Amino acid sequence: MQLHLSTWEEVDSYLSTSKGIIIPIGSTEQHGPNGLIGTDAICPEVIAREVGERTGALVGPTISIGNAQHHLGFSGSVTLRPTTLIAVIKDYVASLARNGFERFYFLNGHGGNIATVGAAFAEIYADYSMAMPGSNRPQVRCVLKNWWDTPGVQALSKELYGDKDGSHATASEVSVTQAAYPDAIKRKEMKQAGRAPRPFADADDYRKLYPDGRIGSDPTLATPEHGKRLIEASASDVIEDYRRFLALD
Amino acid sequence: MQLHLSTWEEVDSYLSTSKGIIIPIGSTEQHGPNGLIGTDAICPEVIAREVGERTGALVGPTISIGNAQHHLGFSGSVTLRPTTLIAVIKDYVASLARNGFERFYFLNGHGGNIATVGAAFAEIYADYSMAMPGSNRPQVRCVLKNWWDTPGVQALSKELYGDKDGSHATASEVSVTQAAYPDAIKRKEMKQAGRAPRPFADADDYRKLYPDGRIGSDPTLATPEHGKRLIEASASDVIEDYRRFLALD
Amino acid sequence: MQLHLSTWEEVDSYLSTSKGIIIPIGSTEQHGPNGLIGTDAICPEVIAREVGERTGALVGPTISIGNAQHHLGFSGSVTLRPTTLIAVIKDYVASLARNGFERFYFLNGHGGNIATVGAAFAEIYADYSMAMPGSNRPQVRCVLKNWWDTPGVQALSKELYGDKDGSHATASEVSVTQAAYPDAIKRKEMKQAGRAPRPFADADDYRKLYPDGRIGSDPTLATPEHGKRLIEASASDVIEDYRRFLALD
Amino acid sequence: MQLHLSTWEEVDSYLSTSKGIIIPIGSTEQHGPNGLIGTDAICPEVIAREVGERTGALVGPTISIGNAQHHLGFSGSVTLRPTTLIAVIKDYVASLARNGFERFYFLNGHGGNIATVGAAFAEIYADYSMAMPGSNRPQVRCVLKNWWDTPGVQALSKELYGDKDGSHATASEVSVTQAAYPDAIKRKEMKQAGRAPRPFADADDYRKLYPDGRIGSDPTLATPEHGKRLIEASASDVIEDYRRFLALD
Amino acid sequence: MQLHLSTWEEVDSYLSTSKGIIIPIGSTEQHGPNGLIGTDAICPEVIAREVGERTGALVGPTISIGNAQHHLGFSGSVTLRPTTLIAVIKDYVASLARNGFERFYFLNGHGGNIATVGAAFAEIYADYSMAMPGSNRPQVRCVLKNWWDTPGVQALSKELYGDKDGSHATASEVSVTQAAYPDAIKRKEMKQAGRAPRPFADADDYRKLYPDGRIGSDPTLATPEHGKRLIEASASDVIEDYRRFLALD
Amino acid sequence: MQLHLSTWEEVDSYLSTSKGIIIPIGSTEQHGPNGLIGTDAICPEVIAREVGERTGALVGPTISIGNAQHHLGFSGSVTLRPTTLIAVIKDYVASLARNGFERFYFLNGHGGNIATVGAAFAEIYADYSMAMPGSNRPQVRCVLKNWWDTPGVQALSKELYGDKDGSHATASEVSVTQAAYPDAIKRKEMKQAGRAPRPFADADDYRKLYPDGRIGSDPTLATPEHGKRLIEASASDVIEDYRRFLALD
Ligand code: NI
Ligand code: NI
Ligand code: NI
Ligand code: NI
Ligand code: NI
Ligand code: NI
Repeated sequence: MQLHLSTWEEVDSYLSTSKGIIIPIGSTEQHGPNGLIGTDAICPEVIAREVGERTGALVGPTISIGNAQHHLGFSGSVTLRPTTLIAVIKDYVASLARNGFERFYFLNGHGGNIATVGAAFAEIYADYSMAMPGSNRPQVRCVLKNWWDTPGVQALSKELYGDKDGSHATASEVSVTQAAYPDAIKRKEMKQAGRAPRPFADADDYRKLYPDGRIGSDPTLATPEHGKRLIEASASDVIEDYRRFLALD
Repeated sequence: MQLHLSTWEEVDSYLSTSKGIIIPIGSTEQHGPNGLIGTDAICPEVIAREVGERTGALVGPTISIGNAQHHLGFSGSVTLRPTTLIAVIKDYVASLARNGFERFYFLNGHGGNIATVGAAFAEIYADYSMAMPGSNRPQVRCVLKNWWDTPGVQALSKELYGDKDGSHATASEVSVTQAAYPDAIKRKEMKQAGRAPRPFADADDYRKLYPDGRIGSDPTLATPEHGKRLIEASASDVIEDYRRFLALD
Repeated sequence: MQLHLSTWEEVDSYLSTSKGIIIPIGSTEQHGPNGLIGTDAICPEVIAREVGERTGALVGPTISIGNAQHHLGFSGSVTLRPTTLIAVIKDYVASLARNGFERFYFLNGHGGNIATVGAAFAEIYADYSMAMPGSNRPQVRCVLKNWWDTPGVQALSKELYGDKDGSHATASEVSVTQAAYPDAIKRKEMKQAGRAPRPFADADDYRKLYPDGRIGSDPTLATPEHGKRLIEASASDVIEDYRRFLALD
Repeated sequence: MQLHLSTWEEVDSYLSTSKGIIIPIGSTEQHGPNGLIGTDAICPEVIAREVGERTGALVGPTISIGNAQHHLGFSGSVTLRPTTLIAVIKDYVASLARNGFERFYFLNGHGGNIATVGAAFAEIYADYSMAMPGSNRPQVRCVLKNWWDTPGVQALSKELYGDKDGSHATASEVSVTQAAYPDAIKRKEMKQAGRAPRPFADADDYRKLYPDGRIGSDPTLATPEHGKRLIEASASDVIEDYRRFLALD
Repeated sequence: MQLHLSTWEEVDSYLSTSKGIIIPIGSTEQHGPNGLIGTDAICPEVIAREVGERTGALVGPTISIGNAQHHLGFSGSVTLRPTTLIAVIKDYVASLARNGFERFYFLNGHGGNIATVGAAFAEIYADYSMAMPGSNRPQVRCVLKNWWDTPGVQALSKELYGDKDGSHATASEVSVTQAAYPDAIKRKEMKQAGRAPRPFADADDYRKLYPDGRIGSDPTLATPEHGKRLIEASASDVIEDYRRFLALD
Repeated sequence: MQLHLSTWEEVDSYLSTSKGIIIPIGSTEQHGPNGLIGTDAICPEVIAREVGERTGALVGPTISIGNAQHHLGFSGSVTLRPTTLIAVIKDYVASLARNGFERFYFLNGHGGNIATVGAAFAEIYADYSMAMPGSNRPQVRCVLKNWWDTPGVQALSKELYGDKDGSHATASEVSVTQAAYPDAIKRKEMKQAGRAPRPFADADDYRKLYPDGRIGSDPTLATPEHGKRLIEASASDVIEDYRRFLALD
């Protein structure tokens, strides 16, 4: 069930059965010579929809712009400042909590979001924690799950790409986008990308370390078929994980 | 050309031909008993894509959550505070300006965004205006266009719905979403909604004035075929308007 | 009744008869070769006082600096960033709401404020809308009225100036300031100003388009007598409009 | 010379002779049973105008709402949060600095503003101080002067009121407003107000300590004639002080 | 009793005897050729500990970075923007108020903090003052005390240094740090520093006026023995002052 | 070398040999029945000082209050909101960068800081990344290292406590504080704490899951001798890690 394709009366009905929602969160940033700029938003979005279709879980609109300051050396990349992203997540959660949602499951497509989303959760919780005891607002609970960070996806990545999946513009994520948007598959010759001996800092630094944008990946190995299997694998693991999250006391 | 389906190298090429981008901006909010919560994001998104396909203009990822505080009385509605939305627009524009974009055309799907987006543009310009003279940053220019606010769409609305289109959860916008998502068409019996004798304030006030969420509309008149014609009409007008915007000195 | 010329006990008495207040809001910005920098604050201030005198309505202190970033290319112009102006309006309203005011009527003197003031109202309402249902804070209602945007003023402008009133540094507003400050009338030779074929962006852009600051006006036509009639006409229309606002359920 | 009664060309001329401006800053807050709510804005405004008339110094529009949170227990009082007031002062100074102003003399009417205005100056300076060395922006200098805190006013206060002037809703400031607005003189019987044995905190606390709003004053002693003498005395001292400020290297 | 050396159960016990806490607040900034960069944090910290040991008062962790923008012309100086410092103080107080603390006594080591801390208190109080009447949150009370601004310290300074104590990098504060950190005593030849004829503005301005960082002091006069006496004198006065603060109704 | 015990001239000398600084960052929060509230600040502070003494590296003042919203259910805990902590870190780094520091090594004592500090680094970098290319500001680099997250400490923890070290109020960290403050050792009987089957959210939730504050630890095993060995082990590993950080191109 997708929020943007539902009516408010349908959401009212849904709330009588579940207080949970899945929110895809991605990024809009370069993904190397054959990776789509929308990759990190597309991946959690298609997996969340798969989860929604199989289970009836409600899926909110994707937060498609995340923290991508380090990719701004490449055209078309877009970032929110971390403090802006914190405000977006806070307003999103508060809006839904107002009408009864209590469990927020963020399905993440971008490693660069992890820290800031964690900070956003703490910012949200702090409002509750700093209130005087005895306030009777229902508590919200938030969790972040990376779509690729599940047993099924890890096993499949290893099987399909061995040590060539990399960590940015990965073969896995490019495969997922190829399954999702077969008309937007790009062909580019390239070798497996290297890894710099150190972490990157800002955008100029990132581009110096990773001239074509990739980190350690060979995304020429990506295929739409891989993508389907990866979506399947991730969705299955996420379904279980989300159910556990809802079942927590 | 859609940004999220492009690579950074493609964006580099595009920048050698155009400094412009179209950014759909909508809202996630109730649209009455048969209108989708995503209506205001879906409409400008599908029209912008039509424009992008016909002309090669680049279309950025949709800002799908806008200013919808007055709809929070209905489940599933989501808002950003105006100051959050200002920060989002500012970061979005600054990110793209960094690599050479100069003209930002926001295609809007939600009347409630107009004031805040105008404030956001002023906030962006103020950084330039308050800088000492002689700064050599390239200027950015931003404009907001409502997808329904074009000669072709106005004529078609009148032809199709007469005085029954209304001003929220309109027959027109419901038609556009039916064309875009035919599998998500909802059937609901209802009469044309009334109009309150005064403007609304906050969410409780809005719900008191408009009990099922609609303002003045009869969206049972909506059909997917109307939607196609409306998309067509809006896209044609927007293409012209966008070209004029790019051609300005 | 003017707030700054009243005592707190008088305001207490007033509150037993009315929950409404009129707040003039203007700008401090260039108004061409013979227009005063304070024009946009002076006009709503004198009209609001006229309204206050005739009806006993309370008039708050004028917000004399607004959003004028586009005028910063001319010396003496002062702006608040839109986010600053939003904070000012929010604090102003919250302070008065604390002691019982519920209806805030902003009488505006500057087109450049409209968007930001609208965003400020939404920011204020959002606090109510995002609160859990059942909060028992009395609701506030805010409205913006442009002093020139009334039937009487429009008719008079047409009668006095035809198509020469313009849209910035207008003959009308200069007349109002001449009526209010007859000792500060400036004499300058000039022709009717032109209109640029496109909207302005930041301050440098504005000055390039409008070298002496005016848009489309011939303010040499202004006279103090016109000003008196315009004040009269606006005040009469505003009185009615304000009464309607207070009478709304 | 008053900014709001000047044209931008006159300000351009002025800037060729002086980089300085005087900015009255006050508050909108209760001033006891016979004191005007606008007292703290009126006093520095009329004194600054006197200074402007005698010397040609430019006087900017009054910041009429300051930090008055502690007065919110009395109807009609209005406050800005300190962080809002800091933003207002920062934007005001930056706007004028953009076109060449360098020396900002804030003439203050409200003790409660002193801390926040000091913080605002530090916030402004911090932008310069945290910039890399070698930035060539012209430095700005800001100073705050309380209109009552001059040798002439202190002597006159002692002469006129002895120990009955008090520290809020003082006989002195009420006299100044009576001189400025003779039609708004209020008559109320009351005795000299007491002083609490401790500082106040928030609004409820203030009202508990000072039930009618005054601190230590007997403002029934105020007369318009006293007001004229106080304005005169303050203006003379401020003229000297402002000249010293401009003459500093 | 020091908060950072206590357990939460010990704090629970303490709260049953007192709602008060002492919070040292300093700065990290140049203190001339022989003064430690930590001087302004060290002084209130050691004095507060002395107070805590003698009386059992709870001492919170030192806010060691304050408002020092004007010292950034000297290496090693660190500042918070005033708005950042306001947020820090607000969160610190709100955290402790949540569990029952009501009286906050800030023992200050840095003149440059006074204005901003005052603004922070007003920002905290404003939340209470702008709330609707009838809120039942317990009120907090905050006060700032400069460690040097007590009868005992003033007398001792005069006795030990006459007119050579100065106002930045004073002999007194250097003595206190020598008593606290005898291993970090620095030897430098220098003469009494001068005083500029005017206040400083930003960091470049400060350094121009005070080339080695000191204002009016001869800190070669400092000794650890003086430091011990000054700590003793200040602690005795602070103990009395703090008791009065707690005893206020 | 400790910044707060140095003079600005010593820092100038240091900068000619190194652009790096170590900044301890902790938290002020409950650490169970025998753990100090300052534990998370004390640990990185004493280890950083050890590093500083052995290598001459400069150590800045400890950020002793971090993100501890989840501990506010226990008296004496203090938190900064994540957005406040981001502002603190940004100002701290900007201040030192102004005079030539380029490499910032944050030695962390609190798991709850990790996300927010990561967001702060991205906020800092974003200013560089969003600037137009060609800006010539020297880049800063920031890194976060948890003092316990080193090979030597992990091995020692296993050796000393097996599976009884836990993850909050650990035997290891209590040992470190006992070595640092032998006079503040607390004796309490307790069993190894349990671990909840799920993550915590806000403060009420945390306290419900962990009634005495500990997570999985048996801190009765802590001894000052262990503490000395842990400090030694961590410092040795940190020295290496910091050198690698400085040596990066
Ligand atoms: Ni990715
Ligand atoms: Ni709509
Ligand atoms: Ni105007
Ligand atoms: Ni006053
Ligand atoms: Ni000092
Ligand atoms: Ni810990």
